[in-house]
Amino acid sequence: MATLYDIAVAAAINILTAFAFFIAFAILRIQPCNDRVYFPKWYLKGLRNSPLSSGVFVKRFVNLDFRSYLRFLNWMLAALQMPEPELIDHAGLDSAVYLRIYWTGLKIFVPIALLAFSIMVPVNWSNGTLEHSGLTYSNIDKLSISNVPTGSPRFWTHLVMAYVFSFWTCYVLKKEYEIVATMRLHFLASERRRPDQFTVIVRNVPSDPDESVLELVEHFFLVNHPNHFLGFQAVYDANKLFKLVDEKKKMHNWLDYYQLKYVRDPSKRPTLKTGYLGLLGNRVDAIDFYTSNIERLAKEISVEREVIANDTKYVMPAAFVSFKTRWAAAVCAQTQQTRNPTIWLTEWAPEPRDVYWENLAIPYVALAVRKLISGVAFFFLTFFFMIPIALVQSLANIEGIEKAVPFLKPLIETHFIKSIIQGFLPGIALKIFLIFLPSILMLMSKFEGFISRSALERRSAARFYIFQFINVFLGSIITGTAFQQLNSFIHQSANDIPKIIGTSIPMKATFFITYIMVDGWAGVSGEILRLKPMIIYHLKNFFTVKTEKDREEAMDPGSLSFNTGEPQIQLYFLLGLVYAVVTPILLPFIIVFFGLAYVVFRHQIINVYNQEYESAAAFWPDVHMRIIVALVVSQLLLMGLLSTKQAAQSTPLLIALPVLTIWFHFFCKGRYEPAFVRYPLQEAMMKDTLERVREPNLNLKGYLREAYFHPIFKAGDDDSEMDEANEVEMVQKPELVPTKRHSRRHTPMSSIGSDAPLLNQPAPNL
Amino acid sequence: MATLYDIAVAAAINILTAFAFFIAFAILRIQPCNDRVYFPKWYLKGLRNSPLSSGVFVKRFVNLDFRSYLRFLNWMLAALQMPEPELIDHAGLDSAVYLRIYWTGLKIFVPIALLAFSIMVPVNWSNGTLEHSGLTYSNIDKLSISNVPTGSPRFWTHLVMAYVFSFWTCYVLKKEYEIVATMRLHFLASERRRPDQFTVIVRNVPSDPDESVLELVEHFFLVNHPNHFLGFQAVYDANKLFKLVDEKKKMHNWLDYYQLKYVRDPSKRPTLKTGYLGLLGNRVDAIDFYTSNIERLAKEISVEREVIANDTKYVMPAAFVSFKTRWAAAVCAQTQQTRNPTIWLTEWAPEPRDVYWENLAIPYVALAVRKLISGVAFFFLTFFFMIPIALVQSLANIEGIEKAVPFLKPLIETHFIKSIIQGFLPGIALKIFLIFLPSILMLMSKFEGFISRSALERRSAARFYIFQFINVFLGSIITGTAFQQLNSFIHQSANDIPKIIGTSIPMKATFFITYIMVDGWAGVSGEILRLKPMIIYHLKNFFTVKTEKDREEAMDPGSLSFNTGEPQIQLYFLLGLVYAVVTPILLPFIIVFFGLAYVVFRHQIINVYNQEYESAAAFWPDVHMRIIVALVVSQLLLMGLLSTKQAAQSTPLLIALPVLTIWFHFFCKGRYEPAFVRYPLQEAMMKDTLERVREPNLNLKGYLREAYFHPIFKAGDDDSEMDEANEVEMVQKPELVPTKRHSRRHTPMSSIGSDAPLLNQPAPNL
Repeated sequence: MATLYDIAVAAAINILTAFAFFIAFAILRIQPCNDRVYFPKWYLKGLRNSPLSSGVFVKRFVNLDFRSYLRFLNWMLAALQMPEPELIDHAGLDSAVYLRIYWTGLKIFVPIALLAFSIMVPVNWSNGTLEHSGLTYSNIDKLSISNVPTGSPRFWTHLVMAYVFSFWTCYVLKKEYEIVATMRLHFLASERRRPDQFTVIVRNVPSDPDESVLELVEHFFLVNHPNHFLGFQAVYDANKLFKLVDEKKKMHNWLDYYQLKYVRDPSKRPTLKTGYLGLLGNRVDAIDFYTSNIERLAKEISVEREVIANDTKYVMPAAFVSFKTRWAAAVCAQTQQTRNPTIWLTEWAPEPRDVYWENLAIPYVALAVRKLISGVAFFFLTFFFMIPIALVQSLANIEGIEKAVPFLKPLIETHFIKSIIQGFLPGIALKIFLIFLPSILMLMSKFEGFISRSALERRSAARFYIFQFINVFLGSIITGTAFQQLNSFIHQSANDIPKIIGTSIPMKATFFITYIMVDGWAGVSGEILRLKPMIIYHLKNFFTVKTEKDREEAMDPGSLSFNTGEPQIQLYFLLGLVYAVVTPILLPFIIVFFGLAYVVFRHQIINVYNQEYESAAAFWPDVHMRIIVALVVSQLLLMGLLSTKQAAQSTPLLIALPVLTIWFHFFCKGRYEPAFVRYPLQEAMMKDTLERVREPNLNLKGYLREAYFHPIFKAGDDDSEMDEANEVEMVQKPELVPTKRHSRRHTPMSSIGSDAPLLNQPAPNL
Repeated sequence: MATLYDIAVAAAINILTAFAFFIAFAILRIQPCNDRVYFPKWYLKGLRNSPLSSGVFVKRFVNLDFRSYLRFLNWMLAALQMPEPELIDHAGLDSAVYLRIYWTGLKIFVPIALLAFSIMVPVNWSNGTLEHSGLTYSNIDKLSISNVPTGSPRFWTHLVMAYVFSFWTCYVLKKEYEIVATMRLHFLASERRRPDQFTVIVRNVPSDPDESVLELVEHFFLVNHPNHFLGFQAVYDANKLFKLVDEKKKMHNWLDYYQLKYVRDPSKRPTLKTGYLGLLGNRVDAIDFYTSNIERLAKEISVEREVIANDTKYVMPAAFVSFKTRWAAAVCAQTQQTRNPTIWLTEWAPEPRDVYWENLAIPYVALAVRKLISGVAFFFLTFFFMIPIALVQSLANIEGIEKAVPFLKPLIETHFIKSIIQGFLPGIALKIFLIFLPSILMLMSKFEGFISRSALERRSAARFYIFQFINVFLGSIITGTAFQQLNSFIHQSANDIPKIIGTSIPMKATFFITYIMVDGWAGVSGEILRLKPMIIYHLKNFFTVKTEKDREEAMDPGSLSFNTGEPQIQLYFLLGLVYAVVTPILLPFIIVFFGLAYVVFRHQIINVYNQEYESAAAFWPDVHMRIIVALVVSQLLLMGLLSTKQAAQSTPLLIALPVLTIWFHFFCKGRYEPAFVRYPLQEAMMKDTLERVREPNLNLKGYLREAYFHPIFKAGDDDSEMDEANEVEMVQKPELVPTKRHSRRHTPMSSIGSDAPLLNQPAPNL
């Protein structure tokens, strides 16, 4: 068992590592050649110019101003200085609220730690149970609940503290939920006009023998939302086109690379082999090869565009419908349109950047089936992931490799390589799996059919959290694979499970302290160094960058990845809450993590990350719920632990805690969650009225026209021309709805004939 | 253990009892004096006249036409003849759909029984396990799964049958859900105009220092639903007034009684004592006493009315808001109005008869707290109800009574009385509790704050079902109180619980068969006799009835009570599904129950029950869910049972069943439940458009004016006069919103002064 001294040494090592990272970062970031690695956000905003273009040659790449090296921790202060409203303006609400998760951690754990150290540590320490028990123990254990003798009245302290900590956590959570909900509503109703305020996405448009999807959508909304309907943007199946454009872009990159090579060494025209991975096949002139290929692709792309524009087969049964007012959009998004609740599904359109185009056309039944499949798949992934890995491990031994690739035998047999393979291979399969896990989970979410990237990330985060809870948290406490745990849980009584976990909890404190330092502290300080993006940037810069625009593209600002980051934070919330009563010595380590992460990510959000979408903090209900889950778990485990300590009189009092906590959760859900799924009419009406007064001549149609084009049609490609003639017309006579059908269904008035012009011509303006 | 012969005898007895009831019913119903007991529905509809008023004196009371006695089972045919659309028109959708629950039972269990008897009974019977086991067994057990030897491959039959039965049940459930949803939507959008189509209830109107609730409501909806808002009806705190009116009515009844007594025997003026229960106090003239009291109450009532009309304190922060179109009402009911989701809560107004007025003004936080309290209270009620009953039982022995009322000692000491007390008293406390249980649950639902009577009944039904599931179903299988069960479940593993219950299931088959016959068969045939209402009617008829109107009031048609009836049906679904695979012999008994109940309740709905409210089958999602729960329970128990029979290879196959069933439930929920909570805009728009064309000059305002008056203001009391002058005006200029506040908040245009007439004068037209 680790002693206090061991922990101190480990902490010192990790603090030094973190410090080394910070110093490396401080040095690297002020080198002009790294400017685009460490400040890409400002370049993207157009607020910073490349320092490479001016000054002495050396100074362009290396910072020689030694004073700036002395202020190497200044970035921390700078990161903290930007006020929150400015941060929201600079990086979006999502980022600002993401930071609040760390801030909430600090708010919860700093007072808890103070209380725990002033009250519970003395209570635990002043016992002599472990000293007289004859067991091996460390000083860490003397600080924990293990040191209190069985049946001691001192457990009342722990009981009272469990109540105090729970109430404090709930209080902070409620305050935060309130603040975030207000921020979200303020953001949504803010001055700035955004296309999604006026737009609703309608999915599962039914097929109709008489009318095309385009006509159907228009008629439906003209009839059912008269006076409010403005226009709509159809959704096209552009997956093939997307692939072609992507291929062309890659070819362009290679062409650039070879052209640069040729320019640097004009004596030799670059060549390449056309076969597998450039290893086989005929040798051809590289520049010619890519030029002709790009031409071919350009032709294919224009043909495909033509096809998409003219063939109704490519119109998907979904559309972005825009309304004249925010009020009408809010109404349409929150109501059910037809009898059959599986067609004409309306919901708020995600922000244009946030739309996940591939999933827009999945029918309702398919969605339900996909949900079932991915649920079952996730269950197997969580509980049985060790099986394929064990299989790989059993294959990936020396003999297996020698059998598979006999010609490598002499190489493998050398002592050094052999020991590497034997030492690393078994672990490496697991490591690779864990690295790819977030991507696997993301793939599963995509398969499940969410239509916005924010929803995809939220779902992946939820699953990643469950995986970590079972395989990291429970897996570390009760050693054994998740399936073995599951099996033993099924065979244990509901009463025994918290007992078994609860009693192992104090023993694992030192393990988790080390985990926090290695995974949390080092991880966060590694994040700020951005080693991988820096290397890639410099490689790209050397090989393919020709113009300033290329350099812009070589820059990889990255972004906050909610689906991996948030579950990690939640694990720390869980550890903190579980150990707060049991082994309070863990709390300072968690506080250091939250503080460090808050500063580092604030810096990254301000200077580095490029926001990929804006969901207006739609993830907060998830964050809130997971902290509540952590709280309930901690209460149940404490109950299990105390019941083995013969403090049974405390059980009835402890049962009340999870009941109250769960009730608190539902209270908060009712009180604040609507702010995250619905949009109040009063807000919409206020904003509409203000806008009508301030900008009576606003051309909303023009504003919304291109907002929801598939990105493939909109930009990035120089040869796309917008067809202005096809501009969507303002609907002037909502009462007259032209239709081609023969009055089989209901139109408000009799149809005015099929030769009337379609009021809305939503062809993709290619 | 009961043999087949025992069961046959019990069945014969119960069939004879039921038959006796039917014959008694057949004789009683054709006696003219009982006409109002057995056909009240037709009187209420005004389609039947009293046979008492014409003909020979004897014939008025006794039916002498002997031919009619021969056709004594004809009512069954008559009950089945009315087609469903006519039934809906006659008795409302709620009743028609309630009957469908029995019908669903028949649809599920008849094919299952046929399959079970043709396949599973032979498979079970042809084994010899029980014969060679040396255990006592009966022929019933030979038909059950107990007769199959441990580890036999014959269990594959049961496995396959479990799949077939589950799929069949789900198929029927899906079909029924679809039909009911369609019926509901059709009913809601039907030709007939109903006030609730246009009305939304808004609750938790915030308090405002500048404006009264009345002004606030009007301004809010004029601003946020311009062009659509029609008017509103405030809600008044009339609980005191209600009490006064109720008291006055009771006095009236007594006055009638004494006046009748005086008329029959004019020689002696009736007197009464004014003290406790008419036993103590001064003797006064009864007619004078009640006349003066009624006068006093009438005065108090008119004062109270005056106060309510003029004092704003009596206006509750809730209102019924009406819109010009169904579309606008659908929009308002489905959307969130303001930032704070706990104020301005809008939802569909229940039908006027369905409103539960007392709960309209409970604030949000109080609702959340009440929910928690009643949840905890229900938990204790379910698991600990035996404690107070045991307490009463221990007190209610001979010695206890002798101590409490010593002057009764000689009476109690007599042998006969003593044996009665000793024999009955212990059981009677439990019996009384069970009789009052539905009322206790209803009180709890009222405390929880539901605003419609249908919601109250739904909640009570859900809780009654849980109570029955735990205390009747589980309580009969594993003997012991619910708390003992809970305690043992906590200490058993999740794996063992289904095993323990599953293995006891086959042994309890005979008990449940008897239960079905006594509770189901006899209960249903007792229902048709209406013994209690008949006796009360004849007593009233003799003592207080003077006029035809009084006789009308003496009639007690009763109504379907969903909160007691539906949980009983669900218990039979549960038994049927659980025993379908295990002991199929139980199925015919259940089918007889469903068939009998269907005919009897169809008859009662057509001829007897008076519909108290119309919720348009809002209860179906609950019914559906509880059948699904029963299905899942049956699958889990089968899994437990088979795992003890060493048919372990079946477990993985059986696990898939509950997963699929639960998925099916969520699929149906998404597919059909919206029809029960939301109202599609397309339907509303269609109906509005039709109506606008057909009745362009409809005075909707007039139609809606009195719809949502508190019943106390509206009718039943002769001296209430409607103040026509106060009629609600049509709002003509929605853009101009008069307000008294000093432009602190947002109004679309500047206020037009406080002296403008209030467009809507919603004083209660007293």
